[in-house]
Amino acid sequence: METVKELCTTPTKKLKSCIEDAYDGPALELKCINTIRALSADQVSTAKSGHPGAPMGCAPMAHLLWCEVMTYSPSKPEWWNRDRFVLSNGHCCAMLYSMLHLSGYNLSMDDLKHFRQIGSKTPGHPENFMTEGVEVSTGPLGQGISNAVGFAIAQSHFSSTYSTKDFPSIFDHYTYVICGDGCLQEGISSEACSLAGHLGLGRLIVLYDDNLITIDGSTDLSFTEDVNMRFESYGWHVQTVGDIESGVKDLRASIEAAKSELGKPSLIKIRTTIGYGSFNEGTAATHGAPLKPDDLSQTKLKYGLDPSKHFQVPDDVSQAYEARTEVVESRREAWEATYKKYKIAYPDKATELERRFNRELPDVCLDSLPTFAFGIDKPQATRKYSNICLNAVAPILPELIGGSADLTPSNLTALACSGDFQKDSPSGRYLRFGVREHGMAAICNGLFAYGGIRPFCATFLNFAGYALGSIRVSALSQFGVLYIMTHDSIGLGEDGPTHQPVEMIESLRSMPNINVFRPADLNEMNAAYQVSLTNFKTPTVICCSRSTVPALENTTIEKGMKGAYILIGEEIKAPDLILVSSGSEIGLCLAALIKISEYGIKTRVVSMPCQEIFLAQSQQYQISVLPGDIPTLSVEASAINGWHRFSHAQIGMSTFGVSAPADDVFKKFGFTDSNVAEKAKILVEHYLKSGSVPKLMDRPIFDDNVEDGMH
Amino acid sequence: METVKELCTTPTKKLKSCIEDAYDGPALELKCINTIRALSADQVSTAKSGHPGAPMGCAPMAHLLWCEVMTYSPSKPEWWNRDRFVLSNGHCCAMLYSMLHLSGYNLSMDDLKHFRQIGSKTPGHPENFMTEGVEVSTGPLGQGISNAVGFAIAQSHFSSTYSTKDFPSIFDHYTYVICGDGCLQEGISSEACSLAGHLGLGRLIVLYDDNLITIDGSTDLSFTEDVNMRFESYGWHVQTVGDIESGVKDLRASIEAAKSELGKPSLIKIRTTIGYGSFNEGTAATHGAPLKPDDLSQTKLKYGLDPSKHFQVPDDVSQAYEARTEVVESRREAWEATYKKYKIAYPDKATELERRFNRELPDVCLDSLPTFAFGIDKPQATRKYSNICLNAVAPILPELIGGSADLTPSNLTALACSGDFQKDSPSGRYLRFGVREHGMAAICNGLFAYGGIRPFCATFLNFAGYALGSIRVSALSQFGVLYIMTHDSIGLGEDGPTHQPVEMIESLRSMPNINVFRPADLNEMNAAYQVSLTNFKTPTVICCSRSTVPALENTTIEKGMKGAYILIGEEIKAPDLILVSSGSEIGLCLAALIKISEYGIKTRVVSMPCQEIFLAQSQQYQISVLPGDIPTLSVEASAINGWHRFSHAQIGMSTFGVSAPADDVFKKFGFTDSNVAEKAKILVEHYLKSGSVPKLMDRPIFDDNVEDGMH
Repeated sequence: METVKELCTTPTKKLKSCIEDAYDGPALELKCINTIRALSADQVSTAKSGHPGAPMGCAPMAHLLWCEVMTYSPSKPEWWNRDRFVLSNGHCCAMLYSMLHLSGYNLSMDDLKHFRQIGSKTPGHPENFMTEGVEVSTGPLGQGISNAVGFAIAQSHFSSTYSTKDFPSIFDHYTYVICGDGCLQEGISSEACSLAGHLGLGRLIVLYDDNLITIDGSTDLSFTEDVNMRFESYGWHVQTVGDIESGVKDLRASIEAAKSELGKPSLIKIRTTIGYGSFNEGTAATHGAPLKPDDLSQTKLKYGLDPSKHFQVPDDVSQAYEARTEVVESRREAWEATYKKYKIAYPDKATELERRFNRELPDVCLDSLPTFAFGIDKPQATRKYSNICLNAVAPILPELIGGSADLTPSNLTALACSGDFQKDSPSGRYLRFGVREHGMAAICNGLFAYGGIRPFCATFLNFAGYALGSIRVSALSQFGVLYIMTHDSIGLGEDGPTHQPVEMIESLRSMPNINVFRPADLNEMNAAYQVSLTNFKTPTVICCSRSTVPALENTTIEKGMKGAYILIGEEIKAPDLILVSSGSEIGLCLAALIKISEYGIKTRVVSMPCQEIFLAQSQQYQISVLPGDIPTLSVEASAINGWHRFSHAQIGMSTFGVSAPADDVFKKFGFTDSNVAEKAKILVEHYLKSGSVPKLMDRPIFDDNVEDGMH
Repeated sequence: METVKELCTTPTKKLKSCIEDAYDGPALELKCINTIRALSADQVSTAKSGHPGAPMGCAPMAHLLWCEVMTYSPSKPEWWNRDRFVLSNGHCCAMLYSMLHLSGYNLSMDDLKHFRQIGSKTPGHPENFMTEGVEVSTGPLGQGISNAVGFAIAQSHFSSTYSTKDFPSIFDHYTYVICGDGCLQEGISSEACSLAGHLGLGRLIVLYDDNLITIDGSTDLSFTEDVNMRFESYGWHVQTVGDIESGVKDLRASIEAAKSELGKPSLIKIRTTIGYGSFNEGTAATHGAPLKPDDLSQTKLKYGLDPSKHFQVPDDVSQAYEARTEVVESRREAWEATYKKYKIAYPDKATELERRFNRELPDVCLDSLPTFAFGIDKPQATRKYSNICLNAVAPILPELIGGSADLTPSNLTALACSGDFQKDSPSGRYLRFGVREHGMAAICNGLFAYGGIRPFCATFLNFAGYALGSIRVSALSQFGVLYIMTHDSIGLGEDGPTHQPVEMIESLRSMPNINVFRPADLNEMNAAYQVSLTNFKTPTVICCSRSTVPALENTTIEKGMKGAYILIGEEIKAPDLILVSSGSEIGLCLAALIKISEYGIKTRVVSMPCQEIFLAQSQQYQISVLPGDIPTLSVEASAINGWHRFSHAQIGMSTFGVSAPADDVFKKFGFTDSNVAEKAKILVEHYLKSGSVPKLMDRPIFDDNVEDGMH
C-alpha cells in the first residue's frame, strides 16, 4: 500500500478508496471521523484563521470518545455525573465545536460558520463562558490537563462524600483529556500530573496526541524525553497506541484498560499525523493556518467527501450521532431516576448537594465570620485573621476545599474541621499541593469548574508570580477561586528580596475580573471573605501580613465591603491632607498622624482594602472618600504604580527589598511614622505654594528607595 | 550501635564518640563537615531566623565539592573556567556562606555573624549582587537548577566556539548544583531538566538532597514520584547514594562517575537527614527556625565541637581549606599560563572573549541597527522590526544567544547568521526552548550569569505570565536579558482572550529594574535594542505588535531613547489636549487627530515607548513633554492601571479581550479614530467647564469595555 504522501500525487479516485482500504473498522466510523476532520478544517478555512492540523489528527479520538466512550447530556450540559472532557490543546477547538454540534449541544452549523468571529459561540480557543459544553477555557498550554486533575479530585471527593452503599454511583464518571506535546512540555503539567499520580486519580484518562510536531518543527528540536517513562515515574498507568489513522481498535482497547485501572491515572500515548490527509500532513505547516483551497478539496476527496462542499455532514453520520445522543441522554435519565430515590433516602445529602451545585451559600455562613472587638481582642497578623475566618466558615461550607503549596504552617490555611484529601482519604478537604504553585492554581480552577466546590489555595504572595498563568485563567473563566497570599510585603523581612513581593499586588490589580484585598484587621478580613464567598464569578486574592497589625478602632465590615472608606477624620470638614493606605501600613499611617498633627495639618485617613471594589462604588461615594482637590498621599509597602489613580504623591516601593528584620527593612525604605509625616508636610506645602493639587509630572516624588542605576 | 535519637538521651561523651565511630572516613573530613554544620546553625541562631536543617543535612556534599571536587578561585571569583556552583535550595545559604568563608572568599566571620542583617553580605537567600562567589540569586524554588542548565549550555557553547585542537581546555569546567525536593516539585525544573537531557549537557551534575521532608511534613504528603525514573526519562545519567552521614565514599564515587559521563547530565540522589544531629533531626521542625539553645549545644557536642562556642573553626579545619584553596588557585594559575599562550596563538579569539566577558560592545554594534526612511521604507509589524534589529546586530555580536519558546515563526526570532545550539552543534546560537517559558527565562538568567553572553528569549507577551518568576529574577539579579514579547495586545485577534495580553504590560512595568518598551516603529525599535544592549544590569522587555503599524514621520532614535517625546505638535505653543500613547496605538492617535482637529482642538501627540526611561529623565524634560495642566488622554490597548501617572483620562482595557479579527476587536473596545476623537472632546470640555484638569476621582472614565458583573 502506498503512503498518503504518495497518494497525493496519484489520481483522485485511488486516493479516496485507498484511505478507505487502509481503515480497519466500519466504513461509517471512518466517515464520522472524516466528517469531523473536514468540518473542523472548514471552520478554519472560513475564518481564514485557526488550527486545522490537530483536529485532522485527533478526530479519531474525538469520535471514539463522543460516539462510544463518554456519557454526557446535550440537553442538560450541567448534569453532575457527566463525563468531563477537557481539550487541553485548546487550539484544536474547531474539533471540539464539531463534536458539540454533532452531539446536539446548543451549537448550530451557523455557529461553526462564525468560528473566531466577534460575539460567536466558537471563539479561537475554548471559552467556558461562551459555549455550552466547554468545561474550561484552554489554549494557554498545560492548563487544561491540570484543570482535569482538579476534576478528578472533585469526582473522587464527591463520590466518597455523597455516595452510599445503596447508591454507589451518584458520582462515578470519568474525566477525559486530549492534550498535545505543548501541554506536556509546560512545567505546570509536570506539577499537576505528579500530584495526580500521588493521589491515584484512577478516573482520569489522558489521550496524548503524539504527533511529533510543534510550531518550530519536529519535536526532535527540543522534546525527546521518554514521556511514557516520565508518567510511569509519577505512578501513572501508561499505554501506547501505535497509529490511529488505520483504525481505533487499539485505542478502544486502551481506553477500556484505562477505565479498569481505578488506582492510577492513565496516559495513552497515541501516534497521530498532524493535518492527516493534507498535502502538508505531518508538518508544522498544517498547525496554525488554514489549508489552501486546493489542499482542502483534495483532502475532502481523500476523506470520501464531496470536495466542493463546505460544512457537510452526511445523513448517516448525523444519524450515528443522534443515536448516540439518545443513548447518553437515556443514561442521564436513568441516573436521574436513581438520584430521585437517593434524595428520598438521603434528603440531607441531596439538599446539600443541590445547594452546592446551585451555587448557594447556607444562610448562617456569612454571619459566622468573626468581628474584631476593639479593646478586647488581641491584635494579630492578618494571616492569622485569615486563618480565623477560613476556619469559621469551613465547618459550615463543605464546599470549601483547598490547601497550600507546601506552606501550610506559614500561610495558616490548615482546616481544623477536616483532614487531608489523599488517595486513601478522598473525603478529606485539605489538599497537600506540594511546592507546585502553578499546578495548584490550575487544579483549583478545575475544582471550581466541576461545580459544587469553592476552592482556596495559598502561597507567599511573591510566588503568585509562579501561578499567574492560572490565576489569569481564574479571572478570565469567571471562577470564584479564593487565593490566600501571605507574607505580602517587604515586611516578610529576613528571607529577603527573593521572597518579598513588590510588584505582585499591582500585577494582580491590573488583571480584569479579580478582587485584590489587603485587609488591615479582622473586620476588613471578614469583608474580604464575604466578598470572596458571595462572588461566584470573580476570584479573590487576599493579601495577608506576616506580622501583627495594630488594633483599629473604626473599622467595620460594612465599610470594608465598600473597598475604601474614611477610617479617621470623618468629622473634619476640610482636611488639609488625606492619607490613603492598606493592610499593614494602616497602622503606620495612624502612628504618623500624631506627628502630622504637630505640624497643624488636619488629616483624614482612608483605608483602602480593595481598589476594585471601591472603583465599583458610585462616583459620588468615591468623591466623598477621595475628593481629589485635597492633597492625597498614599502609603503602601508595594510598587507605587497603580496608586497615581488615587493619590497625588506616593510612599511605596520602586526597588526590590532587602534581607533584614522587618523593622529594619521598613525603616530603610521610608516606612516610618516620621518619614510619612515629613512627606505629608512636603505635599501639603507644595499644595499651599502652588494653590492647587500637584500636576501630573510636577508631583513630589518620594523615591527613598531608588538606588543607583535602577528605576 | 545506637541511633542518633537514642544517643540524645545518653551521656555526652558517648554521643560524641559515637558519631565519630559511625563515620567511615578520615576524622578530619568529619570534623570539616561538622564545622560547616555548626557554623551554619550558628548563623541562623545568631540571626534568630533562617534555615538550619538543610545545611546540617547537606554539609557532607558541600565539603566534598569544595575540598575535593570543584576548582574555583577565591582571589579571582570571576575566573572564566571556574566550576560553577548553584545552591538551588537557596534557603540553605548559611551553608554556602560557610563554604565561601572557609574557602577564602571575601566573606569574613563577621559577615557570617551578620547573617540576614541589613546591608550584610549574607542575606537570607543567596543574592549574586551582594556576595562574591554567589553565582545566582536563588530561593524561589526551581530557579537555581534551571539557571545551571544555562551555565552548562554556556560552557558547552564557549568550549566548542573557542577551544582549539591545541588548546582544548579553555572551557572545560563543570556545573554543580545542590537542590532539594522543592526544586524538583516546581514545574520549572521539569522544563529545564527535560531540555538539559535533550541537549546532553554532560558537564551538569546535580546533587539532590533527598531528605524526605518538606515544610508541610513528610514528602509522602505530596511527592511520591520516582525522581530517578523521571530524570532517566529526560535522558539523564542517574545514581543513588544511600546515606551521606556515615561517609562520603559513595558520593565521591558517584561524582566521579558523573564527571565521566560526558554525554548526559547527571543526577545523584542522596539520602540525607535534615537537621542531622538536632533533637528534631529528620523533621520539618529543623527546616525554617533556629535550633533551641540547648539543642544547638548538644548537637555541637555530638559533632565533637565545643558546645559553648559559636562560630568555631578548628585550626586543622582551617588548614584543610587553606590547603585546598592553594590547590585550586594553582590550577587557575596554570590555566592562566595556558590562556596566555592561547592568546598569542589565537589573538582574535582571545580579544573577542575578553571583550565579551568584560561586557563591552563592539564599536560598530549600535550603528548597525537600522533606521526607518519615511516615505521610502514599507511599514511592517513591530515584531518584524524586532527581527530586523536582532539580525542586524547578531552577526556582530556573537554573545547574542537565545531563542523562542516554540514560537519562532511567530516571534520572528530566528537568526540568519547561526544555526541551532544542539547536542551535536554546540556552537550554534539559536536555542529551541520548546514550550517552556519559565525554564526558558531561567536558562537565560543562567546564560547571562555565566558571563560573555547577551541572552534573548521570546514568546507571546501574554505568556510572559508563565515566566514571571524568572523574569523577576532577571530584574532582581541585574541580568541584562532581552525579552522579545510579540502579539502584545488584543490586536492579536482571533486567538482570543486566552492569548491576548491585557494586564501583562502593567505587570512588567510595576516590576523594579526592568525597561518595558513598546515601540511604535523601526526607529523606536532601534532605540529599544540600543537601551537593551547598553544596559548590562537591567533586563529589557520589548513588546511587539502582530500586525503592521503605519509609517511615522517624526520618530528618531534619539527621541525614542528618552522614553517619551513629542511626536506631533511641538510647534503648538498652547495645546488644548495631549494624546499620549505607545506602540500600535500611535497610528490610531494620528488617525484620530484629523477628527479632533475638526472640533478645533489643538493637539499634541506624545509617543511613550518606555515609561521607565521617561521617568529617568529630568523633571524639566518630563514637564516639557507632559506639562500636567493640559488635559491629557492616554490611549493604549492594555490595562489602564499605570496610566493615571501620565494622563487625566484613559482609553484602555478594563476587561479581557474577545476572539475576532483584530480590527473587530479594536473596534469593540473603542480603539477607533472616532472614539478617540469623541473622548478627547469630552475631556477637553470637562476641562473648559471646570477650569482645571480633572480631580482624582472626578475624572471622566471611559470604560467602553466594562461588562456586567466585572470590573
